[in-house]
Amino acid sequence: MEASLQAALDALSDPIRRCIVRELAVAPDWALPCGTFKELPVAKSTLSHHFTVLRNVGLLEQRDEGARRLNRLRREEFDARFPGLLALVLSEP
Amino acid sequence: MEASLQAALDALSDPIRRCIVRELAVAPDWALPCGTFKELPVAKSTLSHHFTVLRNVGLLEQRDEGARRLNRLRREEFDARFPGLLALVLSEP
Repeated sequence: MEASLQAALDALSDPIRRCIVRELAVAPDWALPCGTFKELPVAKSTLSHHFTVLRNVGLLEQRDEGARRLNRLRREEFDARFPGLLALVLSEP
Repeated sequence: MEASLQAALDALSDPIRRCIVRELAVAPDWALPCGTFKELPVAKSTLSHHFTVLRNVGLLEQRDEGARRLNRLRREEFDARFPGLLALVLSEP
């Protein structure tokens, strides 16, 4: 999963994706299905794309449970690869 | 100069701008005029735009000396505002 810095910056330069990351950060691992985020002002297909980008860059992990796709933020892994970057996103007001 | 995280990520998500930052980081303050960077594969006007973006986000400071525009990387200031972000850029191969 060695994402490049380019990929990480591209992933996090989208405000909706940073919003998803911040919401995941305050929930327990695997607590939030993708459906939780449907109040975000984007189409369902766009939201699905955002999750794919975040997963591809190593920021989150997903698993299916019945009809729900659950998410876990890969905090330690991402922080080891890009020290400080996640903290910046989480400290954003 | 309180740049937003959005502005900082936008500024650094461009590979040419990260290249400029890395070159400035290995030179003494005020050592490099903008003209130094003309080997980068972009038009002069584009290069000038890149410098403006970096200046606006608080990453560099410029001063004119005759016909040359000299640059200084605002390391400490940027690092205080966005801890770890500049280090990520400088550690990129």
